[in-house]
Amino acid sequence: MLQLRAPYLIFLGDIEDGTYGKTGKGLVDWCPERVAGQIRLPGCAVDLGVPDLTVAGAASTGVNSLIIGVALIGGELPQHWLAVVKEAIDAGMDIVSGMHTRLKDDPEMVKAAGRSGSRLVDVREPPDNIPVCSGIKRSGKRVLMVGTDCAVGKKYSALALSSALTDLGLKATFRATGQTGIMLAGTGIAVDAVIADFISGSAEMISPDNDDDHWDVIEGQGSLFNPGYAGVSLGLTHGSQPDALVLCHDAVRKEIDGWPGYRIPSLEECMQQNLEAARLTNENVRFAGISINTSGLPSSDREDYLQSVAAEFGLPCVDPVASGSGAIAKNIIDNF
Amino acid sequence: MLQLRAPYLIFLGDIEDGTYGKTGKGLVDWCPERVAGQIRLPGCAVDLGVPDLTVAGAASTGVNSLIIGVALIGGELPQHWLAVVKEAIDAGMDIVSGMHTRLKDDPEMVKAAGRSGSRLVDVREPPDNIPVCSGIKRSGKRVLMVGTDCAVGKKYSALALSSALTDLGLKATFRATGQTGIMLAGTGIAVDAVIADFISGSAEMISPDNDDDHWDVIEGQGSLFNPGYAGVSLGLTHGSQPDALVLCHDAVRKEIDGWPGYRIPSLEECMQQNLEAARLTNENVRFAGISINTSGLPSSDREDYLQSVAAEFGLPCVDPVASGSGAIAKNIIDNF
Repeated sequence: MLQLRAPYLIFLGDIEDGTYGKTGKGLVDWCPERVAGQIRLPGCAVDLGVPDLTVAGAASTGVNSLIIGVALIGGELPQHWLAVVKEAIDAGMDIVSGMHTRLKDDPEMVKAAGRSGSRLVDVREPPDNIPVCSGIKRSGKRVLMVGTDCAVGKKYSALALSSALTDLGLKATFRATGQTGIMLAGTGIAVDAVIADFISGSAEMISPDNDDDHWDVIEGQGSLFNPGYAGVSLGLTHGSQPDALVLCHDAVRKEIDGWPGYRIPSLEECMQQNLEAARLTNENVRFAGISINTSGLPSSDREDYLQSVAAEFGLPCVDPVASGSGAIAKNIIDNF
Repeated sequence: MLQLRAPYLIFLGDIEDGTYGKTGKGLVDWCPERVAGQIRLPGCAVDLGVPDLTVAGAASTGVNSLIIGVALIGGELPQHWLAVVKEAIDAGMDIVSGMHTRLKDDPEMVKAAGRSGSRLVDVREPPDNIPVCSGIKRSGKRVLMVGTDCAVGKKYSALALSSALTDLGLKATFRATGQTGIMLAGTGIAVDAVIADFISGSAEMISPDNDDDHWDVIEGQGSLFNPGYAGVSLGLTHGSQPDALVLCHDAVRKEIDGWPGYRIPSLEECMQQNLEAARLTNENVRFAGISINTSGLPSSDREDYLQSVAAEFGLPCVDPVASGSGAIAKNIIDNF
């Protein structure tokens, strides 16, 4: 499985809008220990609050990877960004990207990388040795994020829960199943980029055997209720063999994002179908909590909403951005 | 989407065991109108009952494709079979295979094909333009085979049902989702070979808009209860938007084949979960029948068994190998 080499130098190009720099911000927020600094071209309006470095300066202090920390419209590197990338290749750094255009398709970059020994890493590219799912029970404990839709905070919920479990003294590891998560964790597989036959097999690779008291906190993907991506979600669930599930939801979303006419399921319906699916590989699976993005609600209503959902299902219910996932972590410690 | 060019010449090599010639036999049974003949090397013990042709003879009568009609152990063409393949390439025939080793990875064959204009067709290779599933309702009617496991007769059931619907005067088309099915239909997509994000999108391509009174009869893949392949099954179900489902089952199988400890679900449980899944994209979906491989039962018990299942669920229940799928076709005509 892919292993990224820290420390990272985060390349922001000359972006003017912070929303395109989310990947870089996530790295600084969630794995500051992996980040040495940022590199910005003239005109860049985003500042991640980490040291500005040159490629040469970064290389001399042992930086191993240049991370393209920007979501690029069109998925291609702008021409005037290439000089920095080439300099980093020549300095022997790995170039790490989640772009749709693969660095490996540029023969010049491939040649330069061959000379310097740097790797051109597309984090969406799955390993080529994924086996078919075995279904054999693994040691260790696993909690998987599942959602009422895509983009309802599954990655954030997993990161917050992993961090809360560690804060409470448990052994816990965030397990990445998508490109940004992989950059954060330094390893993982983009399960939606795997050949269909190997979805659940890739999930088995992502959370291997572990100590009996260790928790893998697995980033979810898609939703059983998303007509585009439900197959990914189901295979990920089967391969993860989760002992616990966390339901992720956006409090104000009414329709599956991008599929007009497809309604967001009720929390109860979503929990029931996810339990049914997860029981195939772990019959004792239960929900450990509910993690809701309440930012769309009036701020005065958020706490009441969370409390009413908690009361309805008898489970801790948090907005992890507002107050962390400590309540779910505590439930896992006490009851799983 | 892939389009194979009939008429076919079926290459059987020098196989001695008919079980390896199932693909060829399927072609002769289900699409005799596409088959011009067979070509066999000395020592071949299998005879499909169609004319023995030479490559030159076949080419002169307009044969367009040489089909590797054999399941190869190890997935590679034996060295002493290559002369026939090369002769067919030189004669301008397409070479069609479902082997794991891709013909396109042999530079000599690629060169020869370039000269003669023949295509090297791997039927498992998906098209590269599959869109993400739209979820938009299509015109025409669809019936999808779903199963309690892999290899319980979903392809055979679909072929038999398609044929029975046509016999009763309906417009019906068998839609292939796996490699043998694609050779039979001359088109289709191996959905288990598609990138995970595009499973349901590929299913939408396989059964496009059609006349309101036309039925697509869609070959299923895997099972929601198979821990290796359930993601494929779910995506196929969502993209197919089935109006009707047919449950396929092996009367004597107790465990998921290849996954010891995973039990075959009850028919009721399997129907309920498949309905739940299919309702996401077609809320009016219902079961149209049950198609069971009873060959493992004592022959004296088979009819009683089918009748008892039919009575329990109030649905036509057939063994399509024993007596065809006319009862299910009739139910579709009368009630869908």
